[in-house]
Amino acid sequence: MLTKKLLDGYWRFRNDSHPADKGRYEQLASLGQAPAALVVACCDSRVDVSAIFGAGPGDLFIVRNVANLVPPFQPDGKFHGTSAAVEYAAMVLKVPNIIVLGHSHCGGMAAYRDKLKGKPDDTDFIGTWLTQLDGLDVKKSDIERHGEETAFELAGVRQSLSNLRMFDAVRNKEAEGMLALHGLHFDIGSGVVLALDEDTDTFSPLPETVEA
Amino acid sequence: MLTKKLLDGYWRFRNDSHPADKGRYEQLASLGQAPAALVVACCDSRVDVSAIFGAGPGDLFIVRNVANLVPPFQPDGKFHGTSAAVEYAAMVLKVPNIIVLGHSHCGGMAAYRDKLKGKPDDTDFIGTWLTQLDGLDVKKSDIERHGEETAFELAGVRQSLSNLRMFDAVRNKEAEGMLALHGLHFDIGSGVVLALDEDTDTFSPLPETVEA
Amino acid sequence: MLTKKLLDGYWRFRNDSHPADKGRYEQLASLGQAPAALVVACCDSRVDVSAIFGAGPGDLFIVRNVANLVPPFQPDGKFHGTSAAVEYAAMVLKVPNIIVLGHSHCGGMAAYRDKLKGKPDDTDFIGTWLTQLDGLDVKKSDIERHGEETAFELAGVRQSLSNLRMFDAVRNKEAEGMLALHGLHFDIGSGVVLALDEDTDTFSPLPETVEA
Amino acid sequence: MLTKKLLDGYWRFRNDSHPADKGRYEQLASLGQAPAALVVACCDSRVDVSAIFGAGPGDLFIVRNVANLVPPFQPDGKFHGTSAAVEYAAMVLKVPNIIVLGHSHCGGMAAYRDKLKGKPDDTDFIGTWLTQLDGLDVKKSDIERHGEETAFELAGVRQSLSNLRMFDAVRNKEAEGMLALHGLHFDIGSGVVLALDEDTDTFSPLPETVEA
Repeated sequence: MLTKKLLDGYWRFRNDSHPADKGRYEQLASLGQAPAALVVACCDSRVDVSAIFGAGPGDLFIVRNVANLVPPFQPDGKFHGTSAAVEYAAMVLKVPNIIVLGHSHCGGMAAYRDKLKGKPDDTDFIGTWLTQLDGLDVKKSDIERHGEETAFELAGVRQSLSNLRMFDAVRNKEAEGMLALHGLHFDIGSGVVLALDEDTDTFSPLPETVEA
Repeated sequence: MLTKKLLDGYWRFRNDSHPADKGRYEQLASLGQAPAALVVACCDSRVDVSAIFGAGPGDLFIVRNVANLVPPFQPDGKFHGTSAAVEYAAMVLKVPNIIVLGHSHCGGMAAYRDKLKGKPDDTDFIGTWLTQLDGLDVKKSDIERHGEETAFELAGVRQSLSNLRMFDAVRNKEAEGMLALHGLHFDIGSGVVLALDEDTDTFSPLPETVEA
Repeated sequence: MLTKKLLDGYWRFRNDSHPADKGRYEQLASLGQAPAALVVACCDSRVDVSAIFGAGPGDLFIVRNVANLVPPFQPDGKFHGTSAAVEYAAMVLKVPNIIVLGHSHCGGMAAYRDKLKGKPDDTDFIGTWLTQLDGLDVKKSDIERHGEETAFELAGVRQSLSNLRMFDAVRNKEAEGMLALHGLHFDIGSGVVLALDEDTDTFSPLPETVEA
Repeated sequence: MLTKKLLDGYWRFRNDSHPADKGRYEQLASLGQAPAALVVACCDSRVDVSAIFGAGPGDLFIVRNVANLVPPFQPDGKFHGTSAAVEYAAMVLKVPNIIVLGHSHCGGMAAYRDKLKGKPDDTDFIGTWLTQLDGLDVKKSDIERHGEETAFELAGVRQSLSNLRMFDAVRNKEAEGMLALHGLHFDIGSGVVLALDEDTDTFSPLPETVEA
């Protein structure tokens, strides 16, 4: 049986949130989804993706894994959950935006840093999953500006953007101007989101308004 | 540059939601997360996991992939994002609950049903990802009670629960009474969540209160 | 040949606005529309509906006629453009919101007030179109609070809401909680939008936030 | 209560867009409107008329109905919303241009094509509204050049132009050189607008500049 807290949460949803958006849910059930973005986020319980973007039902297609990684393009007949989600978002749902959303205090990134420092790996999957990060290009300028922990997380976001561009569907749609890629980093304590400017290769707080 | 709408959503978060929970976010940043459950959910934009369980920051560790699948336990040195998340939740975060959350109108399940009907697969990853469902045991009683589409989705939830129990950490903790597994199914239009009773192997709406 | 100004405006759209949202337009062309609201607005050139609600492509299904009127439900086999739009929005697009958007300085309403004062009508269609307003219930309290001109416009919004509820699809969906009706009034000079509170039957400026 | 999203959009308008054009809005409120064109457009949420023509407040008088139809001239004492708007634009506002703006993926046109193929009509208004299109002259050359779906939409634009010329005010002003009629068609995915050349009776993309 579900815990009392989760069950109470569900009944608040049933009695308040869903009825308040009932027509929208019914419409989305009938007509299907056409979300404004794919978000690649971490599983971390402190990162509420919908809340961060003020999103409602139907707005964001979200894939979540440990450390918000997009693996390199490997059509090898093995299970690639994140790659399948990227493909579904780009080709079936034709999303106009893909956001890679890193975050502070990332346990996956911490495990990867531990491994670099020689900590033995006794896991079946976590360690292997994190080998994607081997050779991660952590920038000195990021360490100076944002500290080491954050610099690793920012490097992870850059690498996922780079791996996304290994997918034909993503690279081609971006070249055609059909798809925009965004690298972001969320700080849990302050709520501040940094955005990557790919021209200068630096992360800075999101601006108040969209520049002209 | 992020779209105006996503940026506006972020500033609502910065100005309203995050300040309203500021102490909680600060606490979670300092002390780390200890979520009440791992939720295995679909990427679908119409399934807002936090909303369904009335959850706030720190409550739910969420892995999302196409069709909310847990792959079979395969420690083969390949990338297994969902398995890594399960392992992280069970072993590092020691979550007391794991929820597999299926849902109505699932595009992944629809693609799998299309494949069964002979539709050719021209994808790099989606088709392979869905081969996990090959041999899916769709129950006649579910078809009669809930219709074919839902019956497939329910069968997927049962299979993911079964695969979860291939993980030692999950099976052992469940045997010790440290971990409870839950199979749920969310209907987008009505908001109703069905729960699997593993004693009778049937899905019924969540009750009003936790039974004594 | 289109005027230079309109042609220049089009090329700005082609070179700037459409490319900036190209992926979203392409997605909407492929997947279809599921707009958040039907808006019944006036043709007036000073009422830019998308601007007033910060709406982008795909957000609002908009019917516009002289004086933003919804005619009474009359399935008499004659052409009823607005009624067809209401039916399409409610039944095909299943919109969760309908907004009747009145506005200040309404020429249609002014023509109706002129007619009441005895000005002869020499039009083929305008005069007849405005006979829908015959017997309009202009409230004294509105005249005192908002002035006579605005009071007529507010009365028109109330009547259109009332006529909307003559449509089975609207009335039933509203009763089921699937559809919310909103009566608004836009002031061109100040930009202020008044909203009708149907409990108190009064119009007041839209609040800063949605009430709990 | 308006949804959070629409309310947020309104406050963006109040805080940003309206103040940025405050003087223009104030002027238009005082002096009245003198729009450069009447646009007859569809209600479709993917057709943002102001955006397509780079128009600001006061520029375009817009009537919108399902499938952007102008009904034949019928001064029969019944309600004719679109005809009243045409009359108002031509006689009261003396607009120098009338644009009929068709568009791709038109749901109204699709419903009409379905009806031609024998699909039963169970609507109160949509079906009747579309009987205006009975006998629509779809040109073979358009089908060859633009495809069947587009050819129907182009034929609808031609018919609306023809019906506009049944109005004395329109026909006479056009003859006097006071009013120009334009038949356009907007493609949602590409943003391209085709314009009817009435000399050759063909639709081609709008040119870069106004011809001498």
